[in-house]
Amino acid sequence: MEVSLLGIPVIAGYGVIPIREYWDKDVVSLAINAVQNLVKSTGLKDFDAIYVGNMLSKYYEEQASISVHLADELGLEDVYALDVECGDASGAYAVLEAIKDVLSGESKIVLAGGVEKSTDELPHRLYRGISLSEDIFLVDYIGLTNLVNHAIALKMYIRRYNVDKADITYLSVLDHKNASKARHAYFRFPIKLDTALNSPPVADPLTLFDISPNIDGAAFLLITTDDIAKEYNLNYVKVLGYGYSVNRTRFYERFDPTTLTAAKRASQQAFKRAGINTSELDFIEIHDSTTIAGVLALESIGVHGSGTAAKYIRSGVHRLDGELPINTFGGLKARGNPLGATGAYAIAEGVMQILGEAGGNQVKDAKIGLIHSMNGFDLSSIVFILGGD
Amino acid sequence: MEVSLLGIPVIAGYGVIPIREYWDKDVVSLAINAVQNLVKSTGLKDFDAIYVGNMLSKYYEEQASISVHLADELGLEDVYALDVECGDASGAYAVLEAIKDVLSGESKIVLAGGVEKSTDELPHRLYRGISLSEDIFLVDYIGLTNLVNHAIALKMYIRRYNVDKADITYLSVLDHKNASKARHAYFRFPIKLDTALNSPPVADPLTLFDISPNIDGAAFLLITTDDIAKEYNLNYVKVLGYGYSVNRTRFYERFDPTTLTAAKRASQQAFKRAGINTSELDFIEIHDSTTIAGVLALESIGVHGSGTAAKYIRSGVHRLDGELPINTFGGLKARGNPLGATGAYAIAEGVMQILGEAGGNQVKDAKIGLIHSMNGFDLSSIVFILGGD
Repeated sequence: MEVSLLGIPVIAGYGVIPIREYWDKDVVSLAINAVQNLVKSTGLKDFDAIYVGNMLSKYYEEQASISVHLADELGLEDVYALDVECGDASGAYAVLEAIKDVLSGESKIVLAGGVEKSTDELPHRLYRGISLSEDIFLVDYIGLTNLVNHAIALKMYIRRYNVDKADITYLSVLDHKNASKARHAYFRFPIKLDTALNSPPVADPLTLFDISPNIDGAAFLLITTDDIAKEYNLNYVKVLGYGYSVNRTRFYERFDPTTLTAAKRASQQAFKRAGINTSELDFIEIHDSTTIAGVLALESIGVHGSGTAAKYIRSGVHRLDGELPINTFGGLKARGNPLGATGAYAIAEGVMQILGEAGGNQVKDAKIGLIHSMNGFDLSSIVFILGGD
Repeated sequence: MEVSLLGIPVIAGYGVIPIREYWDKDVVSLAINAVQNLVKSTGLKDFDAIYVGNMLSKYYEEQASISVHLADELGLEDVYALDVECGDASGAYAVLEAIKDVLSGESKIVLAGGVEKSTDELPHRLYRGISLSEDIFLVDYIGLTNLVNHAIALKMYIRRYNVDKADITYLSVLDHKNASKARHAYFRFPIKLDTALNSPPVADPLTLFDISPNIDGAAFLLITTDDIAKEYNLNYVKVLGYGYSVNRTRFYERFDPTTLTAAKRASQQAFKRAGINTSELDFIEIHDSTTIAGVLALESIGVHGSGTAAKYIRSGVHRLDGELPINTFGGLKARGNPLGATGAYAIAEGVMQILGEAGGNQVKDAKIGLIHSMNGFDLSSIVFILGGD
């Protein structure tokens, strides 16, 4: 990270709500509840800007401009309020907008995160929703939905690298194990590999337990500089590096559909800025919207060679007590995937680890973590590397 | 404007498409067409970041992540792509995000603008769309739609200041006159005041000709610094100042519903940053989503005192050949209101004026212009002050 005259960007607070079905609350209320938790723990309630990542509120709830309503509910006046969308990476992109806002000198203390409310929807709209980042003409005319892309990639991967699907699906078992101890996770119970493998087919060869649940949630971060965080006596983690990129949107036009090219470029940028390499990471949060996506993410980030990640996951090196823990609160599969909020949860989880506030999910001596968030099947990816002070 | 070490933010190019009904094109295609015009005139086709302002693509077209698809169509790889939403001010907010991206040192050349495609929709969804920035519970349970807020404000204004409605509706006549010469405008014909006054009622006392049309369009700007613009031999206008604010979202909770408080604060900030006052403006583009919104905007910006703007508009001072021209290409009423693209059109029009490229709509000696864009009925407002080099 280049040193800015304005200080180093830091994350100096977080607020999350348990990921659940909230039938009694609208999308703005969920955001407020997460921010209330942030306000409670930081003592700060005035913000220069609010960035809200959201994917589908206009489609599901028919509510736009969540950030403006949030500003109103918080009683703020001279505030900058903006909604941002980059599929199920929206929450993570909101955080990068906040960092740039601080680095530009425009804002000093920024609230950024994500919120999503899906569970009021009937299944046909719920599942169509997750395909809205894809080229909607391909979805409608060819049936190339988001999950179909994942399924094709899974087939290709199994065939190319001669991998047993059980090794890939095992990521779901690991996620559930980690989530079982996490208060804010949705699926707080372990599962058996057989259960996952024998779960109902969704898009062959993906079965239900290969797929993360669309669910409700909200997570917010407080972005500022190290100087200001010290001034307010806030614990913080440093943003050591970040990166982002896009991939070809049409899955079949990609040079190698089993490489997440955007994730690869994004992580390379992030490592370069942070001046570190994979061996220095203490934990990783990957975007496993499906088990195959998680496996490919680990390879694209450079942690494992092509075709090998699944076997490493099964071997145990990525367990909470392993060499390099991943998805420490259960990842998208078990913590839950509240779309536009997902990336913000992953960042909040990274902050909890580094601040030693991860409770039963604490990774021992967690000092440096990588957070990966992606839009659909790597339409775009964003990577943060966070580190302790 | 504080001088940044990275240079002064400038707008060094624009691309717009005529505002029309595009039944044969999707939302991404419209964006591409506007960007192609920008590429043609600037010669630049590589961008570090793309910000797309859009309000309702997820609701109308069921297409998310427009910026990512645009990046793909442009063949870009290591690009930052993000959609932003702040109602019908989205396009203007995209431009401010681009400015902050440049000021943060993260990006050098940024594409920012807006796109909207509405006309495939049936009227009930078309009109519901423009209320999605409002609190959707108030819309559904009380019927407090966006246009109802405008109608109540119009009633209050007429009663409080004893103004003839004809004076307010005259803004529509002025807009249509300006639009009649503008190639990219939608309503390219003049209208008579009587026609406007006798048009069908929509939300009493608003009649059809008090209201801007929801329509299709796309407009993009090239944001960079003065140094880089010079390096590429691009003509540019300087961003002398900007400001933004929010208002209470519930219309009935506002201290004075006939003052656009967000617009007022936003313009005060912008004037302060630019170090100028209203007397130095050569033209203004206001967000007249309805005639009353336009009238109130002129007052809130500080051009006229409360209750007086309508009479000034009728007097002729704001005509293209008047003392202080407004809505030089027809404003939202006659140029058209393609929601998420509207703010980007207004900024592009400001750039055309200052660069002397406004053709039959050219304001004589246009050196400094103010651009106002707002989300709904001043849920939030953003103001730019642009100036010649």
